Amino acid sequence: MKILVIGGCGFIGSHIVDRLLEHGHTVKVLDRQAEQFRTPLHGVEYVFGDFTDSAHILEALTGVDAVMHLASTTVPGTADLDPSADVRNNLLGTLSLLESMTRVGVSRVLFLSSGGTVYGPPDVVPIPEDHPLRPINSYGIVKTAIEHYLQAFEATRGLSPISVRASNPYGPRQGHTGVQGVISTFLKRAMAGEQIEIWGDGSVVRDYLHVCDLAEVCALAIASEKTGPYNAGFGDGTALTRIVDILREVIGRDISVVFKPARKIDVAKSVLDVTRAREDFGWTCRIGLRDGMEDTYRWLQKQAVQHG
Amino acid sequence: MKILVIGGCGFIGSHIVDRLLEHGHTVKVLDRQAEQFRTPLHGVEYVFGDFTDSAHILEALTGVDAVMHLASTTVPGTADLDPSADVRNNLLGTLSLLESMTRVGVSRVLFLSSGGTVYGPPDVVPIPEDHPLRPINSYGIVKTAIEHYLQAFEATRGLSPISVRASNPYGPRQGHTGVQGVISTFLKRAMAGEQIEIWGDGSVVRDYLHVCDLAEVCALAIASEKTGPYNAGFGDGTALTRIVDILREVIGRDISVVFKPARKIDVAKSVLDVTRAREDFGWTCRIGLRDGMEDTYRWLQKQAVQHG
Repeated sequence: MKILVIGGCGFIGSHIVDRLLEHGHTVKVLDRQAEQFRTPLHGVEYVFGDFTDSAHILEALTGVDAVMHLASTTVPGTADLDPSADVRNNLLGTLSLLESMTRVGVSRVLFLSSGGTVYGPPDVVPIPEDHPLRPINSYGIVKTAIEHYLQAFEATRGLSPISVRASNPYGPRQGHTGVQGVISTFLKRAMAGEQIEIWGDGSVVRDYLHVCDLAEVCALAIASEKTGPYNAGFGDGTALTRIVDILREVIGRDISVVFKPARKIDVAKSVLDVTRAREDFGWTCRIGLRDGMEDTYRWLQKQAVQHG
Repeated sequence: MKILVIGGCGFIGSHIVDRLLEHGHTVKVLDRQAEQFRTPLHGVEYVFGDFTDSAHILEALTGVDAVMHLASTTVPGTADLDPSADVRNNLLGTLSLLESMTRVGVSRVLFLSSGGTVYGPPDVVPIPEDHPLRPINSYGIVKTAIEHYLQAFEATRGLSPISVRASNPYGPRQGHTGVQGVISTFLKRAMAGEQIEIWGDGSVVRDYLHVCDLAEVCALAIASEKTGPYNAGFGDGTALTRIVDILREVIGRDISVVFKPARKIDVAKSVLDVTRAREDFGWTCRIGLRDGMEDTYRWLQKQAVQHG
């Protein structure tokens, strides 16, 4: 298949591109800028521009069999600062993409949704895909609205959409801006000898998924004929305090932690039920948390040597 | 209380204004144009403008204790024709309103949501408020996203929002454009001696609510301190074929019906569970379907005499 990866130069996108190439697909990337940590890949066609610009999209869609839509201008921690911008860029931008797709007759699309925010405070853990969607922040509200539109476009406009609801991805090439990705953020701070900040008592449980495992399920999902939502998580949860413990082991020295007041927006425990993806795609996570954190640490060390 | 009614010149809005005045409130109306069927009401302050224009909103919010947001630029039957416009006008417009409210310190807001579209195909009938929201058309997707934002703004910005999820309102002053309100549309066609068109076999069941009963629950809701969603329906469903039977009785002559292919977007049965509104507000519907249709018929006759 020839696959257009929107956001293919980002953290998750770059790993998905790698995996699609390994699976034998032809890859075109649309992104606003080049990859941060690598030079352009041989054999990949790059188009630079904004996915919300329909002229760019229509050009990028030429000759394409399927689209993977991974682009987002916001992260969970910042979207609430300007919900209108979140809606304008991500919801309207995605609607414009879907309308362009139906116009040029490209029907297959994978949307990267958010297993950590679309459900809101869960009734049951691990959370299955048919759990009600009750998002409590803008990031999750927009992702939910996009998923609803995907379904509506499937019913009325012949779209073939699949949504991958990722839990908390981590791994090499994650931006460590401090607003997303506790594992990269913690590792980076610990390596710099800085304190780690934890909101609340550290009991908050999240489902950490290595980005290579996420890329694999996305590559399997786009090539399938399945539609609808699929959770993508490790399927098991880890408390923040346990993350810090593993971090100490991985780095091999003590780390100073400061606890800050809990945030209202953090649900206590979020772990995804990944039965559906296992049964439909034969997918299971291959990288455990300890190995994944070591892998991320090694990558960060290499970065530090190159740039430090 | 001094209440700003956005959309107060529309079908539902005009009845809500009547009811608020009866309850002793002071009313200010913001709408794009004057009422279609009545001259401006004595003692009501009218501001004409667009609710999506924040300059108008900020001016209209002056001196106000609470806001009732009933404005919508779309109806369920047309929103899917241009989902981007639906999002731009109604979702972004509402976010702009909520941001203006928090800026000037007005926290109480009633939002008129849609019990007929936010739930999507129901798991159980009658549908309770905690039923998952799985809208399948743009109108419902936008209403759902707005409800999610209301809740997010309650948690983080001190908003006090209540949503009234109306079923299928009907009654005097309903526009009969053919795209909304089967009862008015059917009555009008029958009075003109025209055929009535039914999509499907007429077995589709809806929860028809007289607009005066809806206005009453909205007036009770805004004056309460409750937040969250409240269904507003008759609590009982009626098939389209039964509507036609009552119509024949009300008008007193036979009516010709033509059946057209069923539409994908119509769920088979939609009836709301109204226990919560009854328990919290002591509200029950006073106007049965037969009486309500006669009332609507008399109003349409009067209109026909005045304008015909």
